[in-house]
Amino acid sequence: MISRKIKEAFLGSSAIRAMFVEGREMAEKYGADNVYDFSLGNPATPAPAAVGRAICGLVKEAEENGAAGSFQLHGYMENAGYVKVRKAIAENLNMRFGTDFDSENIVMTVGAAGGINIIFKTILDPGDEVIVFAPYFGEYRQYAANFDARIVEAAPDLTDFLPDLTDFASKITPHTKAVIVNTPNNPTGVIYKPDAMRKIASILEEKQKEYHTDIYLISDEPYRELVYDGNQEDFLTGYYRNTIVSYSFSKSLSLPGERIGYVAVPREAADAADLIRGLEISNRTLGFVNAPSLMQKAVAECLDEKTDIAFYDENRKLLYDGLTKLGFSCVKPEGAFYLWVKVPTADEETFVNAGKKYHIIMVKGSAFGCAGYVRLAYCVSHETVKNSLPAFEKLAEELHLSKNEE
Amino acid sequence: MISRKIKEAFLGSSAIRAMFVEGREMAEKYGADNVYDFSLGNPATPAPAAVGRAICGLVKEAEENGAAGSFQLHGYMENAGYVKVRKAIAENLNMRFGTDFDSENIVMTVGAAGGINIIFKTILDPGDEVIVFAPYFGEYRQYAANFDARIVEAAPDLTDFLPDLTDFASKITPHTKAVIVNTPNNPTGVIYKPDAMRKIASILEEKQKEYHTDIYLISDEPYRELVYDGNQEDFLTGYYRNTIVSYSFSKSLSLPGERIGYVAVPREAADAADLIRGLEISNRTLGFVNAPSLMQKAVAECLDEKTDIAFYDENRKLLYDGLTKLGFSCVKPEGAFYLWVKVPTADEETFVNAGKKYHIIMVKGSAFGCAGYVRLAYCVSHETVKNSLPAFEKLAEELHLSKNEE
Repeated sequence: MISRKIKEAFLGSSAIRAMFVEGREMAEKYGADNVYDFSLGNPATPAPAAVGRAICGLVKEAEENGAAGSFQLHGYMENAGYVKVRKAIAENLNMRFGTDFDSENIVMTVGAAGGINIIFKTILDPGDEVIVFAPYFGEYRQYAANFDARIVEAAPDLTDFLPDLTDFASKITPHTKAVIVNTPNNPTGVIYKPDAMRKIASILEEKQKEYHTDIYLISDEPYRELVYDGNQEDFLTGYYRNTIVSYSFSKSLSLPGERIGYVAVPREAADAADLIRGLEISNRTLGFVNAPSLMQKAVAECLDEKTDIAFYDENRKLLYDGLTKLGFSCVKPEGAFYLWVKVPTADEETFVNAGKKYHIIMVKGSAFGCAGYVRLAYCVSHETVKNSLPAFEKLAEELHLSKNEE
Repeated sequence: MISRKIKEAFLGSSAIRAMFVEGREMAEKYGADNVYDFSLGNPATPAPAAVGRAICGLVKEAEENGAAGSFQLHGYMENAGYVKVRKAIAENLNMRFGTDFDSENIVMTVGAAGGINIIFKTILDPGDEVIVFAPYFGEYRQYAANFDARIVEAAPDLTDFLPDLTDFASKITPHTKAVIVNTPNNPTGVIYKPDAMRKIASILEEKQKEYHTDIYLISDEPYRELVYDGNQEDFLTGYYRNTIVSYSFSKSLSLPGERIGYVAVPREAADAADLIRGLEISNRTLGFVNAPSLMQKAVAECLDEKTDIAFYDENRKLLYDGLTKLGFSCVKPEGAFYLWVKVPTADEETFVNAGKKYHIIMVKGSAFGCAGYVRLAYCVSHETVKNSLPAFEKLAEELHLSKNEE
């Protein structure tokens, strides 16, 4: 008696979530200290102390003023979110990235997943195509399916895991309604630097002219602030007019379970006013109604706060150096908190299962539309990374990898 | 370049939200004290103090233990929510209503709107029919449209605003996948008492047999605790096996903007295990991912708390008595915080516009599938109700109503 689509979803259920559950079960069996669970992007760093202070400050303010009705903390507001919160975000972005946003360019969302779904609901008709750059966050497939749209994969350049631009250009059709960019990238950790972005933008400009269509570039940027080695935080509306930004505070403030983010629509985007109105309506009608009230006000007070990036950087170096020395071939992450490792066996399944023997939980690359690799989420404790290295060593020995001794 | 469905939604935008915006604009122009805005179900009572204490206690607990990773406050958890939270809710329901729930029967949701959308995604195929009892919360139409299903209205008995059971029975077809009950009712304030519920259940049982189908009864119950005049809180799984409950803490704890609620699926419901799995997947793939983390833990500590019901009761009496005396014909509310008033003019539009002249903001009944009435949301301050009465008096005079002097 359940729906046909959901029955299909039972089969294609999230590989990441499945490994997360398997990791939990293994942790219960062998003890959490003896399991190296790299499955889920669940930040190990706590939220900055300022977030807790903001939350309790707001609760106190409401207690003192709430009875008089002058200060609303937990109530309904506009479907797009509190005007003051949106204004604070707009001004913060303008200061950091030289944009020209006002409160009406910002729609508060139930995280980035909520953000992408309301963008999709606003722009996608059945049969429309959304191009993604492989490897990519597999949930995009489900989000597009919600609106009967089709995900079209563009291949990566396997030397640097930037998009293969020739393949990208060949995948754009008159049905292409949107392209998703996710930089710093999940699952590779690669950053699409200004040069790459300019090339992507120029292909989009050309194809828009060729087909007389508008193609939206959706920038899914929960990892915006997680950059290493002196790389700069970037904001993509500067490259291409029709860019819509979907942001989440889940990584920058370590708040993934709170479901708080926003969508930014620049005034120069095609049909900007209709887009914004569509986003507000979609927020309401898809059942989000609005982004959580207290969290909206709390993040607005923490826009200059950042999680402990040095913490992730230490894990990054430890894991990348450790695995490279053992003979694994890895993409050196420039941002986010994922390590993308080439599978040294004939197929992924063998490798992932071999890892499990040593209590290492990895997610196979095919979950990201790119077989032959695995993703390791190193947003775990330093101890987990350190203690996993002897387990990886045993795995490397079992697979007869040659160590890199330089 | 926006989607066709969203373009259509621009036309049929929420009448409630439109009046809410109009009320705000009027308040800016004439001062909030001079506008009597009865448009939105935004609770005027603050959240019980226990909610604030729970929130700040959790933040403190996380600060003390969070660095060690032993206490997670803001992170991802299972898509269905924290097991401990779900267990606490299950046990609380069992104690209060004699149900037999365990944690796996509860799925935490982003409010009741999120709950109904994941139920719909789980059970509805395109073309399926969902029966609603007029008058009903108009957003159900949008939620069904999200899944290309069809809303079928069953008429009310205009003497008591309970369902006209003959009409209801005639509307059930082999395509009927679900029926929504909302008691205490928005917009009428009527309670479907045990006798009415037994009759509805018996019709459903018969039709299930006749068509060899399963028909789910979806109980949308954000107003469960808001009952007056000694009426009892009720829980509908006891009447009919295939009942799915969608609950929100938005009214009982005055937290509508926090988007926190749950869906309860009894183990005896048809395909219960598939339903629960479908709800979890839908929570993830529609972009909710999970109910907000901190709020899950906060409400679990406040399950025996209740908003100030006496506050609403005072408004209820004041407004019902006041309007009745002035000659308006109203349904006496038994629960929720809405007053359902018969329009004394030829059409709704004239009445709603006449009200605006006296700064009274009402929502027309056709927004609830029942023309000829208006809804007044009396979840406002006592002052607003008191001060609105002279305005209603002027309105009554303009319309030449005869006062009831008894």
